[in-house]
Amino acid sequence: MPDPGDARLADYFRLRDVNLRKSIETEHGLFMAEGEKVIRRALHAGYSPRSLLLTRRRLEALSGLAAAVDAPVYVVDDAVAEQLTGFDVHRGALASFHRRPLPAVEEVLRGARRVVVLEDVLDHTNVGAIFRSAAGLGLDAVLLAPRCADPLYRRSVKVSMGAVFAQPYSRLDDWYGGLEALRERGFQLLALTPGAAAEPLPDALARIGSAPVALMFGSEGDGLSSHWLEQADSGVRIPMAGREVDSLNVTAAAAIACYELVRPPTGG
Amino acid sequence: MPDPGDARLADYFRLRDVNLRKSIETEHGLFMAEGEKVIRRALHAGYSPRSLLLTRRRLEALSGLAAAVDAPVYVVDDAVAEQLTGFDVHRGALASFHRRPLPAVEEVLRGARRVVVLEDVLDHTNVGAIFRSAAGLGLDAVLLAPRCADPLYRRSVKVSMGAVFAQPYSRLDDWYGGLEALRERGFQLLALTPGAAAEPLPDALARIGSAPVALMFGSEGDGLSSHWLEQADSGVRIPMAGREVDSLNVTAAAAIACYELVRPPTGG
Ligand SMILES: C[S@@+](CC[C@H](N)C(=O)[O-])C[C@H]1O[C@@H](n2cnc3c(N)ncnc32)[C@H](O)[C@@H]1O
Ligand SMILES: C[S@@+](CC[C@H](N)C(=O)[O-])C[C@H]1O[C@@H](n2cnc3c(N)ncnc32)[C@H](O)[C@@H]1O
Repeated sequence: MPDPGDARLADYFRLRDVNLRKSIETEHGLFMAEGEKVIRRALHAGYSPRSLLLTRRRLEALSGLAAAVDAPVYVVDDAVAEQLTGFDVHRGALASFHRRPLPAVEEVLRGARRVVVLEDVLDHTNVGAIFRSAAGLGLDAVLLAPRCADPLYRRSVKVSMGAVFAQPYSRLDDWYGGLEALRERGFQLLALTPGAAAEPLPDALARIGSAPVALMFGSEGDGLSSHWLEQADSGVRIPMAGREVDSLNVTAAAAIACYELVRPPTGG
Repeated sequence: MPDPGDARLADYFRLRDVNLRKSIETEHGLFMAEGEKVIRRALHAGYSPRSLLLTRRRLEALSGLAAAVDAPVYVVDDAVAEQLTGFDVHRGALASFHRRPLPAVEEVLRGARRVVVLEDVLDHTNVGAIFRSAAGLGLDAVLLAPRCADPLYRRSVKVSMGAVFAQPYSRLDDWYGGLEALRERGFQLLALTPGAAAEPLPDALARIGSAPVALMFGSEGDGLSSHWLEQADSGVRIPMAGREVDSLNVTAAAAIACYELVRPPTGG
């Protein structure tokens, strides 16, 4: 069995050290998946595995997974897994996958009518949960501003339960002018903002009728930039009760807005 | 200026060590708040401060806060704050507050008509975000099962942006029979569950009409226990698109369900 210093295990090194991981993952073009369900979803989406790490204690239960992975499989004791990764690998399985080039913006927008656009959402938990809502509620695509956090970072993948593999998405390479790609295709750009001056979301959707819609969300701290607010066709809000809470968490706001966008008018 | 070993700073010790913190906070009956906005919200809600910690770099900007806190104020260098707490205190302010006894379940249910009930939601980020949605959308109360994570834990407080102080809540002391308190008061108990057999939420709400409603949510892993599912009047689901996503994140599900519960029938 390999020990924690084994070079073949380098992909699994210190998974809690965000800065270190960002540089390892960028340099080697890899991402990590945890747990059988999520690893199988990455395989199913066609991602190519670099290797699989199993804990000996869970080996028997996970032997089917090992058989499904066309890459080296390393079996280690729990203590080695913990020393290597920096946490208790209680699910018993971690895999490293090759990234692949993102599709072009035009490609993910082809035929799309309901799109989420994230400006600088920086928290991986929020990005993962928003992808899960977008995929679960059936939106067509997600677009990310250049500085939005990485959907394939371990924490995003985990919180999304693998929805980041199923949901078509791309990244704008131009923050300033990138929204033009949506406007050219006839999208109504709705900037989600808690400000009282904004139009209630259900009213905006009723007014827009059947045009394709892009829902834009901003960062955890400051919300959407003033430039993106100006680029939007309208500012829209989820009505709040005003009980000393100025805004919703962006995961909550995105869930509600996606839900309202796909909601059939009379329920059901 | 105090150094990291100073006993007066013991409340601020190793804020990232969840197990240690749970025992410190239980033993001393305290909780932590971060950043001026959230600290002011705790003060405004009537919580009594034990002390305030400011970084010297942010002292001038935060002097108004220091003046508002009727408790010892400690000013330390950034490096000391980091050594003490285990992270970069970039907001420049941390405060320790006394907990107070939770109100009785009967008290938070008095006059309430729209209630959230969390069974074993274990993640502090989810608990904080759900409180923020419940408060922001105007629900009357939140009830927690005995094992649900603590809303006053630092991470919950932070993600909630202080909504945990404004939102009335209590904890059931009996998991098995605790839901009776709701049934006795005429609440319809709706168990939120992604299962295809469940009724779509908008249909259930239309059917129920004007009775008071309790929305029940389950844990991140397994969802609601079978006992609580049986106790409910109906199982209800948020319709999903079925794109390889079996369920939403519980923060997203709770946001949508609270929104649907308070949503005016015709938008606006
Ligand atoms: C935490 S909020 C940012 C708050 C920031 N102070 C602001 O005013 O935008 C993060 C994002 O969630 C969305 N959001 C939160 N609450 C909302 C609401 N009530 N209506 C519409 N969007 C909301 C917005 O897209 C916002 O950029
Ligand atoms: C991550 S889910 C748990 C998934 C679990 N496998 C199950 O089947 O319940 C956590 C909680 O979110 C809520 N939830 C998630 N998706 C939902 C949906 N589509 N409809 C209703 N509730 C949902 C439920 O209350 C659930 O207990």
